[in-house]
Amino acid sequence: MIEAADIEAAAGRIAPHVRRTPVMRMAGGDLGLDIPLILKLELLQATGSFKPRGAFNRMLSLPVPAAGVATASGGNHGAAVAYAARALGHKAEVFCPVPTPAAKTDRIRAYGATLHQVGQAYDEAREASEARAAETGAMIVHAYDQPEVLAGQGTVGLELWQDAPEATHVLVATGGGGLIGGIAAWYAGRGAEVISVEPEGCPTLATALREGRPVPCPVGGLASDSLGARQVGALMFEVARHHVARAVLVPDAAILDAQKRLWQAMRAVAEPGGATALAALTTGAFVPPAGARVAVVVCGSNTDPAKVV
Amino acid sequence: MIEAADIEAAAGRIAPHVRRTPVMRMAGGDLGLDIPLILKLELLQATGSFKPRGAFNRMLSLPVPAAGVATASGGNHGAAVAYAARALGHKAEVFCPVPTPAAKTDRIRAYGATLHQVGQAYDEAREASEARAAETGAMIVHAYDQPEVLAGQGTVGLELWQDAPEATHVLVATGGGGLIGGIAAWYAGRGAEVISVEPEGCPTLATALREGRPVPCPVGGLASDSLGARQVGALMFEVARHHVARAVLVPDAAILDAQKRLWQAMRAVAEPGGATALAALTTGAFVPPAGARVAVVVCGSNTDPAKVV
Ligand SMILES: Cc1ncc(COP(=O)(O)O)c(C=O)c1O
Ligand SMILES: Cc1ncc(COP(=O)(O)O)c(C=O)c1O
Repeated sequence: MIEAADIEAAAGRIAPHVRRTPVMRMAGGDLGLDIPLILKLELLQATGSFKPRGAFNRMLSLPVPAAGVATASGGNHGAAVAYAARALGHKAEVFCPVPTPAAKTDRIRAYGATLHQVGQAYDEAREASEARAAETGAMIVHAYDQPEVLAGQGTVGLELWQDAPEATHVLVATGGGGLIGGIAAWYAGRGAEVISVEPEGCPTLATALREGRPVPCPVGGLASDSLGARQVGALMFEVARHHVARAVLVPDAAILDAQKRLWQAMRAVAEPGGATALAALTTGAFVPPAGARVAVVVCGSNTDPAKVV
Repeated sequence: MIEAADIEAAAGRIAPHVRRTPVMRMAGGDLGLDIPLILKLELLQATGSFKPRGAFNRMLSLPVPAAGVATASGGNHGAAVAYAARALGHKAEVFCPVPTPAAKTDRIRAYGATLHQVGQAYDEAREASEARAAETGAMIVHAYDQPEVLAGQGTVGLELWQDAPEATHVLVATGGGGLIGGIAAWYAGRGAEVISVEPEGCPTLATALREGRPVPCPVGGLASDSLGARQVGALMFEVARHHVARAVLVPDAAILDAQKRLWQAMRAVAEPGGATALAALTTGAFVPPAGARVAVVVCGSNTDPAKVV
């Protein structure tokens, strides 16, 4: 299982390449909430999401072959792999589903990766990426189910814990679970509860916790381009079963509403997956106990701003 | 003259009402610069600019009459006065020039102030606001030329200095000069140089420093809705003549380009006045000496995002 030491090592490895994103404390009033909030502004990360953390950590932990790296992604992980590969001088091939938004595919191309669009959902792109890597000898940088990727994403937790030690609850959006897996591994034994927030259309960890193992789930709705993994990863599930306090679901309408609140209150352009964690507070899917100091990870910004204004 | 103690007192007074905006350090590469940068993300402030700092400090320092407050503004100050007045339970009348962008007038109305649109530029709105205050007995909250307003804006400097003590140069956009006046008053004797950045179309402090006194200037160009005061304030000029190292000018094309770089690199929606300080680096109007640690105040976000994408 991923340990705090792995996350600390990852933090050191990736520090020259990623931004330490800021935490902002605010009264909830401007977001229509009656509690104060701690926001981890990971949407300001290079490439527009937290994903470079895991991508750099994987590429800096293992020797990358001359064939470079290959990956499959709903878009953000692909952009991060393309960005990290360019920074480190590797070739990259990225496989995305056909419906991936232009805000993401444009980045992948701009960072110089070869982009292939295959199938309707992440899982089909993943199969194509694995076939291609078998052919070329490229190293797979998995979107969530590799220890180096989990440890890299866990640096979000490390930073949040350092910058907002008062947090009692940490709300995190889950798709394949690399982000929350890393964060929960960091917070293990540190006293704050880590809570998964998922769209009703992609209930990956909620279902896995209920069934006692990762199981395939439906993939649909507004946030499926970031939270649309078919099931959570095996590695993250070992962490989550011990260290994720609970998983709550939110409807698409609440995700869109959370995006609009972030725009109104702070001119932040959050993509649906980036605003999903906040939606747990606005819907009441998560009701903080009295005295709670709630932190929300705002984790991605790659969307057309016309959709949030 | 404004002293550090006034700014510290202001910080205490306004703390319950404004956000402590974060600082983010980043490699300049993603912005096309070859130096590291310190960004003060004041565009995340409530109302979308730094202006509530001065507005709250004024309203919390003096008794507000039953007639409430009146002000004139290119828009952001008006939004801040409306916001502060609502929070503190006062009436507010705001006078803006006719060309004020909807991103600003919408906020003023949304916060419940009475909005009047008068004339083509700030100066005409200012005359109307003063006539109206004389009539009603409302307290004027000036956009830049009152000690409480300067001290409030100076809290941007205090926070930046606390959060990024390594900064050697601080780049600040100037209109009427309340923001830079407050920041320069804070940094006086603290070893960092404060540098004014102004659009070629509104060279208020550059002209004043050259002439040795505030003088009326042309008002034009892309950023005139935030930097379009006719001249700098008398109070700020006393600070600036001693504590602003220099004033540099940037063309509108560079301001638009800086907006687009902020969007590309970090999905920040900065308005023209909010991106003006960064433009001094991309144009070379300010060339940092070797070893400099440059901080840029990104100070406003109230614009139509379609203009920056
Ligand atoms: C913006 C955003 N948020 C959250 C997630 C979910 O991350 P994970 O798949 O590690 O659970 C993703 C994954 O792509 C994402 O792009
Ligand atoms: C976004 C923004 N930046 C800078 C300024 C300039 O401030 P000052 O007039 O205090 O120089 C303003 C003033 O409205 C503004 O709105």
